Amino acid sequence: MAPHPLAILSEEETNIARDVVVASHPDTVIDFREIYLLEPPKAQLREFLALEHAGRLSPTTPRPPRMALCQYDVIGTDRIPSYQESTVDVGSRKRVKHQVIGKQHHAALTVNEFDVLVERCFASPLFKDALAEFDLPEGFEVVIEPWPYGGLDHTDENRRFFQGLCFARDTTKKNADANFYSYPLPLIPVMDAHTQEIIRVDRPATGGKGEGLRDQTFKRDIIGHCKSSDYVPELLPEGTRKDLKPLNLVQPEGPSFRITNESLVEWQKWRFRVAFNPREGATIHDVWYDGRSVMYRLAISEMTVPYADPRPPFHRKQAFDFGDGGGGNMANNLSIGCDCLGVIKYFDAVLTEPDGSAKKLPNAICLHEQDGGIGWKHSNWRTGRAVVTRNRELVVQFIITLANYEYIFAYKFDQAGGITVESRATGILNVVNIDAGKTSDYGNVVSGGVLAQNHQHIFCVRMDPAVDGADNSVVVEESHPVPMNEATNPNGNFYQVTNETIERAGWLDAAPDLNRTVKIVNPHRKNAISGKPVAYKFIPLATQKLLADPNSIQAKRAQFAQHHVWVTKYRDGELYAGGRYTLQSQQEVDGVADAVRRGDLVADTDVVVWSCFGITHNPRVEDWPVMPVETFQLMIRPSDFFTANPALDVPSDKNGSSVVVGGDCCRNAHI
Amino acid sequence: MAPHPLAILSEEETNIARDVVVASHPDTVIDFREIYLLEPPKAQLREFLALEHAGRLSPTTPRPPRMALCQYDVIGTDRIPSYQESTVDVGSRKRVKHQVIGKQHHAALTVNEFDVLVERCFASPLFKDALAEFDLPEGFEVVIEPWPYGGLDHTDENRRFFQGLCFARDTTKKNADANFYSYPLPLIPVMDAHTQEIIRVDRPATGGKGEGLRDQTFKRDIIGHCKSSDYVPELLPEGTRKDLKPLNLVQPEGPSFRITNESLVEWQKWRFRVAFNPREGATIHDVWYDGRSVMYRLAISEMTVPYADPRPPFHRKQAFDFGDGGGGNMANNLSIGCDCLGVIKYFDAVLTEPDGSAKKLPNAICLHEQDGGIGWKHSNWRTGRAVVTRNRELVVQFIITLANYEYIFAYKFDQAGGITVESRATGILNVVNIDAGKTSDYGNVVSGGVLAQNHQHIFCVRMDPAVDGADNSVVVEESHPVPMNEATNPNGNFYQVTNETIERAGWLDAAPDLNRTVKIVNPHRKNAISGKPVAYKFIPLATQKLLADPNSIQAKRAQFAQHHVWVTKYRDGELYAGGRYTLQSQQEVDGVADAVRRGDLVADTDVVVWSCFGITHNPRVEDWPVMPVETFQLMIRPSDFFTANPALDVPSDKNGSSVVVGGDCCRNAHI
Repeated sequence: MAPHPLAILSEEETNIARDVVVASHPDTVIDFREIYLLEPPKAQLREFLALEHAGRLSPTTPRPPRMALCQYDVIGTDRIPSYQESTVDVGSRKRVKHQVIGKQHHAALTVNEFDVLVERCFASPLFKDALAEFDLPEGFEVVIEPWPYGGLDHTDENRRFFQGLCFARDTTKKNADANFYSYPLPLIPVMDAHTQEIIRVDRPATGGKGEGLRDQTFKRDIIGHCKSSDYVPELLPEGTRKDLKPLNLVQPEGPSFRITNESLVEWQKWRFRVAFNPREGATIHDVWYDGRSVMYRLAISEMTVPYADPRPPFHRKQAFDFGDGGGGNMANNLSIGCDCLGVIKYFDAVLTEPDGSAKKLPNAICLHEQDGGIGWKHSNWRTGRAVVTRNRELVVQFIITLANYEYIFAYKFDQAGGITVESRATGILNVVNIDAGKTSDYGNVVSGGVLAQNHQHIFCVRMDPAVDGADNSVVVEESHPVPMNEATNPNGNFYQVTNETIERAGWLDAAPDLNRTVKIVNPHRKNAISGKPVAYKFIPLATQKLLADPNSIQAKRAQFAQHHVWVTKYRDGELYAGGRYTLQSQQEVDGVADAVRRGDLVADTDVVVWSCFGITHNPRVEDWPVMPVETFQLMIRPSDFFTANPALDVPSDKNGSSVVVGGDCCRNAHI
Repeated sequence: MAPHPLAILSEEETNIARDVVVASHPDTVIDFREIYLLEPPKAQLREFLALEHAGRLSPTTPRPPRMALCQYDVIGTDRIPSYQESTVDVGSRKRVKHQVIGKQHHAALTVNEFDVLVERCFASPLFKDALAEFDLPEGFEVVIEPWPYGGLDHTDENRRFFQGLCFARDTTKKNADANFYSYPLPLIPVMDAHTQEIIRVDRPATGGKGEGLRDQTFKRDIIGHCKSSDYVPELLPEGTRKDLKPLNLVQPEGPSFRITNESLVEWQKWRFRVAFNPREGATIHDVWYDGRSVMYRLAISEMTVPYADPRPPFHRKQAFDFGDGGGGNMANNLSIGCDCLGVIKYFDAVLTEPDGSAKKLPNAICLHEQDGGIGWKHSNWRTGRAVVTRNRELVVQFIITLANYEYIFAYKFDQAGGITVESRATGILNVVNIDAGKTSDYGNVVSGGVLAQNHQHIFCVRMDPAVDGADNSVVVEESHPVPMNEATNPNGNFYQVTNETIERAGWLDAAPDLNRTVKIVNPHRKNAISGKPVAYKFIPLATQKLLADPNSIQAKRAQFAQHHVWVTKYRDGELYAGGRYTLQSQQEVDGVADAVRRGDLVADTDVVVWSCFGITHNPRVEDWPVMPVETFQLMIRPSDFFTANPALDVPSDKNGSSVVVGGDCCRNAHI
């Protein structure tokens, strides 16, 4: 029997797709980028899922064909690659679609391209000459950190470029993980990815306040004022702290979740599937609670990180971490005991080698339970009786590393019917060299000679809801003050709650002054108690939107980051807030802003809701050399979906393993 | 040797204070309300703490005298109580101050007054007559929930009133904890607390949309359309869920904290004292990190819960939970295993009996460690080496019950120098009767015949900072867009970060569009790396402010709830955002707005910062019968206070007890 239509492509399926593509391009060199499941069209998948939920699947039930989306370069005789995409029906081993992607678009980068950049830099006379202007202390070697090129300058031809941020590593420490970011070099080599030539070495300024955007003020002794700042424990001068006692999360009877059919997760009345793709990382599908549908699909759609240093070429520092590199491609192998505690289920992922063969990424996603503190409590002061429950959460987590930074993403399900999408930013700040003794308007000096530039991180979460069915509406609830008046508000305490259905695709912003709340309702299903339509809701996070000038390339490329909420009508494949091709884009193409421009009617239909939020990150010294997590939570909560608190039946039994200080289990505690 | 100047009054000290007060009022009846430590004047305490931190305390070091603040009614010959306050020097057993509080102010309520209300209602012919208009089903008995009277109506004399919200309890269930809130009765008896007479029974409307504010539409069969909705597990029709496996938090070597001298907590470079008083509950004092001062005092100052139903007398439903009743007086006895997990240290509190004698409240505060997920992580993609630490947190928690509602307050300290003040709202919604089949503009029908009225909860956290010393300034940092221009922003990516010092006492609001951040800086201490003044910062929570009309009594009583941040100059005893006397107040007197009105200069001096935030709570059906926690977090973070991430030295060792699903420890898991 074929795998479930939402199961990721197996290694075998991936290799079949590769073979079909190779056979379709005879006598040609092909460099593969990605091969992954093209999810079935929603109409098709919904039909299948309806049968599945009705318990009417049999081995002979027709299934949506297993389609592989294959992304690859065809290397022409002129050695200039042509980026192409094919869809392969894995079952029939047939190519069903083939597209040569226009030159205006660039495929997402691969780690292999990074390797080429590094190699070509070191071979480049241009780069060697630039480097020769500096004296590096003995034992320091140059490290090149490949980066997307960002938006083009108007003088640039739209070829495929990469840039390298340069640092120096102290090899005398004899530790490959010595922190090279603490020794930044003011050199940015630029490579034409097609010719693989270093065509230019940009020379960013290293000055401070009051100096011009292009003033070259650096000294030959370029890192003499930089300081060692390591984070690997064996290089910490004082070692690690000794007074932290173990805190173990023990589940003697195993976890409360159940996983069947590879990707079907069942836990505490929740039921959903976990999948994974190289672009979005972990995705959540077909979410049900207690026999009722909540969400068709939930994923992190995009994020952008624009930097605010105006000195050229720093304006080109703008990453689209999902579109440029891939939240799945960059996913960590999560190892036990640190990335998660407790009893953990890992899911492996399948990525693609340059020759198109499947490459397993073990432990790309973890699933585990955690304690979320008190869930609900009430004490009856008359009787002294307290009933208190803990809020157990189920967490689906993946972590991505993008050069210096990491992001920890989690989908958290709770017992009260809530889903929280959490993002934690950590890792190492992106930094540049600053002359000794200077400070800057463009960032903060976080270590000797190290300027951490001001920047933003703006995330976009895509919710494809299915609240008690496919057709939903988006209702905006607001709470408005009402002037005191004899007729309706004689004592001035009244405020009015308004509910407006969004009729056409559009955007809206957070409005905490109105307690603006976005409700995804099923207009055909009324709550039996309140009479209101059943809904899930969220309060858009009131975080600062993109600050770049609307006419800047940064802003044009990231229209999604300019509003907090977007509402669109569902279309197959319309998954990416910043557009399908973000690498080196000049503007957002076919992103969420274009989807809105269609002007679709969105009430009582298959609607999609996008929530954007983030942080304006003006770095602190405390963010160096590795930044403590900065956490965001998008809380999606039932709102008159249930007829009572769904966590009411969570047992309130006491946890038997908790003890009082000085009790039996901790006689050795120094108390 | 005397107790530490910040130690709460012992039972013995409390009783001494009582004796002194009683002796000061010979031949008089005294009803005690509260006796608790009057914290020493800051100048005095600071002197003592300086010696303590310098290790220069000896048994002969002079200590601030132990002062007891005693609050009590003196019952005059006319039986009308006079509310008075005395300060008693416990060491010398002398009264050092005595005040008769003016009749315009009312002392905070006591549970004993509640008992009187209940008793007087049942004895009142007025109340009996009102009740006789209803037919209650057999086996139902009336329950009266005493409430503060709220702001006076303009027709009211300023006597001391209480109101009772009425419900019915189904005694046929033979369970004292059957949920009576699901059977609300439209009767609000009002008692004159001095004469102890029921002077009136208010008759709130029970109608729905389109009906007048005072329309009386109820039927004799007043709760016939109400439904049973219980939360105690033995009354749940289906019982509790069976598929939740235990999740144990085990600390085999005991906790990492150390407690000495009763209230001194030392943990992971943090050092602070925990205290408790009947008004604010748990308070945090003299907070240091790694030998450096951070905060002089941190507490929840006030909260107000105004209700938005305009139908009289519901406009009088406005609680000040700390000022009216007392966050300490209403604190729960926290029992092990549910309120907290792991190895727990409990602190007892001391409250006061009506006769002035000390009453121990066991387990009023708990202290424990918890795992806060990943603390920081970086993977070097070149070497594959990942370093990841967990974020251990130390939690000081207390929980208060105010009639139907509960609040869980926690001060959380982390390893990266951060302090988070957390508040979780849970408990039972305050509800009123609504006629069968109707819905309302004033709230949501959450159960048959039960209307949960729209309301707000607005909290105020008071921070008395001491960032590297007593004299601090408040700086407001904002990030502003800058139009594209050739000179300073040629590519439009630049944004400008501004920092303005607040010179005079005042208020400001959250401004997420500017990423407005409040920094408490020590202008005399520069960070050695960045050159910026050392600081702690927070981003004011952008939540909706008080909605009531500014001319309403609700708004006049709660000026603090009308802005997000207040900055004032320190004054001894100025602790309460809504004023010292909130019960039945007509306006905020000597609250934070009055403190601001002094117009003090607040730069580089002893400054106090107040952060107000909350929730506009338009109830969901899911909030019934007990509401899942709604959580708020005020995150106070170092900002160039340290010279690197203070959590850098947290060990990254793997946790030895975590296991993979199907591993040794969980063979029985159904996976």
